[in-house]
Amino acid sequence: MKLVTTIAQLRQELKALGRKDKTLGLVPTMGYLHEGHRSLIRKAKEQNDLVVVSDFVNPTQFGPNEDYDKYPRDIDRDCKAAEEAGADIVFHPDASEIYVPGASTEVEVKGETTHKLCGASRPIHFKGVTTIVCTLFHIVQPDRAYFGQKDAQQVVVVKKMVRDLHIPVKIVPCPIVREADGLAKSSRNIYLTPEQHQQALSLSRGLQKARDFFAGSTADHTSAEKLKKVIRQEISAQPLSDIEYVEVVDTDTLDKIEKIEPGKRALAAVAVRFGSTRLIDNTILGGKENV
Amino acid sequence: MKLVTTIAQLRQELKALGRKDKTLGLVPTMGYLHEGHRSLIRKAKEQNDLVVVSDFVNPTQFGPNEDYDKYPRDIDRDCKAAEEAGADIVFHPDASEIYVPGASTEVEVKGETTHKLCGASRPIHFKGVTTIVCTLFHIVQPDRAYFGQKDAQQVVVVKKMVRDLHIPVKIVPCPIVREADGLAKSSRNIYLTPEQHQQALSLSRGLQKARDFFAGSTADHTSAEKLKKVIRQEISAQPLSDIEYVEVVDTDTLDKIEKIEPGKRALAAVAVRFGSTRLIDNTILGGKENV
Repeated sequence: MKLVTTIAQLRQELKALGRKDKTLGLVPTMGYLHEGHRSLIRKAKEQNDLVVVSDFVNPTQFGPNEDYDKYPRDIDRDCKAAEEAGADIVFHPDASEIYVPGASTEVEVKGETTHKLCGASRPIHFKGVTTIVCTLFHIVQPDRAYFGQKDAQQVVVVKKMVRDLHIPVKIVPCPIVREADGLAKSSRNIYLTPEQHQQALSLSRGLQKARDFFAGSTADHTSAEKLKKVIRQEISAQPLSDIEYVEVVDTDTLDKIEKIEPGKRALAAVAVRFGSTRLIDNTILGGKENV
Repeated sequence: MKLVTTIAQLRQELKALGRKDKTLGLVPTMGYLHEGHRSLIRKAKEQNDLVVVSDFVNPTQFGPNEDYDKYPRDIDRDCKAAEEAGADIVFHPDASEIYVPGASTEVEVKGETTHKLCGASRPIHFKGVTTIVCTLFHIVQPDRAYFGQKDAQQVVVVKKMVRDLHIPVKIVPCPIVREADGLAKSSRNIYLTPEQHQQALSLSRGLQKARDFFAGSTADHTSAEKLKKVIRQEISAQPLSDIEYVEVVDTDTLDKIEKIEPGKRALAAVAVRFGSTRLIDNTILGGKENV
């Protein structure tokens, strides 16, 4: 496996690997790879001849008071993890390699999709995400790109960008990977104290209770309000939790819904702070795991 | 030569033509092809195995009071002209083929580059241009793309987008093509009455006078103010002319300059209305024709 830091090196390596006559999968990450990332890399290797993992903490998707500076980084460990999972190349550029001096071009999905859920508290986040993802697509030119379903809104937004701009890349969402105790894998989990970690298990427990409630036979088992209440009760019972949102929305548009119609799916999504650490989690109600 | 109207047809035709092992040039146009467009197609054919001409009047780059509805269209004539000039494919989609239902993703070069010169009177124009050009690049995936230097600001903005987003396409600007009488070729020239046409020759005459003045040996021959005055005098002498701007600016940033430093180049650019018809023209002072 090769570690490359410049676009020129990346293109040279891809050429040397015979990219033109092979299929290529991209796994865009911000590094500090965990089992969730490794599952994306393995899926990419299953479906493609070549796999590039980008490892880049993208400054433009962090707000001014967010954790860009302290976001965890460990490129040596990342390279080992990427290689074990099947990556051919890790692309780990400096910010100055991606954002040339004076760069000011933005790719933005306008409208509600990017301003609800996580977009409400992170107003510039998705504009940063779509700009870097579109740029990485131009740099790597993959056939397929792999995203974790844990960032459900990101998957919806990136799919919309790809469709709107006719980007020739297939987006492959992959299931959430969890710790044995149920906590969704996240690079930010290392911020949690043991007590916060314990209480953060209420997210996956609340979502599971919503799944059980939805599968049940009470009269209001499809009511979004009732499902949200089930989740909210579980999480708010934890004294260290600070709920940002608990929502049950349309899986494609992220619009609020009143109830889950027969045969339809919905996304139950939560964002909760424990101290200064913000965690998100979600599940699909009424269908398979991926949006 | 093939005329195609859908993205699927285009990709099929390119595959049939063996695109993977050939070079591809794209000439993005809004149709109603004139000799300026034909020169771009010929240049594209010189430099590439295959040439696609896109022929699409893009609604998103027209303001609400501009000439989208009456913009001239003649696809039959365009196909003949494109074929004669060496095109392999004319891509002529409906707006609904490009802008899928609910499309809301925009590609925008933020900052002054898009808000000065033509951007001052056409505030959404360049956002529409960069969005459609980026989208066409995704659809056609050319190696090179050809733009007329007549739209000098468009060339600067598209080059900046390509650089900022690392789009794998080489932008090739091509010289302005003029009528025998000096009027820069434009699809909008057909709007002009004979009298307006006659008076519109003051644009190229004014720019030529600026070139002569700059090549001269007066003490202030490099002064932007003086050069603008030379141009403005020539155009404002025409009673039907209504000057929108006359500027002498940096060729890369489009920033205003005080004088043209020794060995440096500058862009002299004008926009002038004759009745409801808006004409633009430009020249490079101190170097070769292209920005």
